[in-house]
Amino acid sequence: MPSAPQNGSFTDLYVEIQQFYACQVQHLDALRAEEFAATFASDGVFHHSVDAPPAKGPGEIAAAIRAHQEHRYGSDPAQRRHWFNMLQVMPQDDGSIVTEYYALVLVTRPGDPVAVTAPACFVRDVLVRESGRLLNRERTVVADHTR
Amino acid sequence: MPSAPQNGSFTDLYVEIQQFYACQVQHLDALRAEEFAATFASDGVFHHSVDAPPAKGPGEIAAAIRAHQEHRYGSDPAQRRHWFNMLQVMPQDDGSIVTEYYALVLVTRPGDPVAVTAPACFVRDVLVRESGRLLNRERTVVADHTR
Amino acid sequence: MPSAPQNGSFTDLYVEIQQFYACQVQHLDALRAEEFAATFASDGVFHHSVDAPPAKGPGEIAAAIRAHQEHRYGSDPAQRRHWFNMLQVMPQDDGSIVTEYYALVLVTRPGDPVAVTAPACFVRDVLVRESGRLLNRERTVVADHTR
Repeated sequence: MPSAPQNGSFTDLYVEIQQFYACQVQHLDALRAEEFAATFASDGVFHHSVDAPPAKGPGEIAAAIRAHQEHRYGSDPAQRRHWFNMLQVMPQDDGSIVTEYYALVLVTRPGDPVAVTAPACFVRDVLVRESGRLLNRERTVVADHTR
Repeated sequence: MPSAPQNGSFTDLYVEIQQFYACQVQHLDALRAEEFAATFASDGVFHHSVDAPPAKGPGEIAAAIRAHQEHRYGSDPAQRRHWFNMLQVMPQDDGSIVTEYYALVLVTRPGDPVAVTAPACFVRDVLVRESGRLLNRERTVVADHTR
Repeated sequence: MPSAPQNGSFTDLYVEIQQFYACQVQHLDALRAEEFAATFASDGVFHHSVDAPPAKGPGEIAAAIRAHQEHRYGSDPAQRRHWFNMLQVMPQDDGSIVTEYYALVLVTRPGDPVAVTAPACFVRDVLVRESGRLLNRERTVVADHTR
């Protein structure tokens, strides 16, 4: 069960979440699907697309990440970079933390310096703290072009 | 009149401003002109364009936001996202806070995942605290392509 | 020699580094090569490209910045904006601070509001504190299209 946030200020929490996301996206962009999935709680739910059912739990989340990579990029040697910005952190009474932020995926291919900016998204997370660690309990991604 | 910053460190202030902007841009990007304008002080001044006189006070600011939206986008169902980054926070002796940052507008249209990156801007704000709330007293936006 | 970090929390350090980079990139984007170079330690090393030897010390770093500007842009009146994001801050036992982050250069030309997004990079810095000031002791930039 999620515990209440550790002692500490809103400021500490905000910065901790910035660092949490910075670490999380490096896993995603390096195609470390298991390490990315391990940033989710055991009951974590990832609504990664409005067109598909959510992935539930780290095993399904890792599989969804790999499937997306295969489907979208296949043998395409694209380097993706997930950028998150305009972060709002909203601690909840039950000890969870709701965040909202903008996301943009930058896609770069070998030899072409221009990064493709696609897609832009709005993301809403529910974070929890388990044994002191922040984890994603829920993530809902809505790409702006699918609204 | 603006009061001095609340007790608290530079760090607290910096994070508070990050959250303030994250909330402010959600109003702007959801076309909530009144809510956006309410993040300005009653004597707030918004220099939104080098080609036009500034909007003064929340009423004019809301009107300017709506006019810009009509003029630039009309019935175009674009989803805009304002991204701010590289934030500098400079507390002033009079209790106001000057900030400088880079801004980029991402524009996404239905069905096209590629976000248009226009314009990039440099922004300078003067923030004040009234009844404990941060508010914009002045904002000056200069788009890079108009320099 | 680098001193240990000042008293203060990880949170304070994280925010200090955000502000440090915000100031540093304004020097870079305003073509203030000497001021940018002065954010490096006297023994600072800047690996700015995988294709060229690193610049060592503020003098070489300022020269490298000017040479890059001449070579890439010449009389082209482009306004560049360096955006850093997804910052990880990792204090080290020796008192230095390793950071990793994503970088993107936005390039805007007069009259065209669309910013060119090139290149996207991964950056790793070693920061040190000298006489209380943060300074870059090492920066390694790898552009995604050169991987």
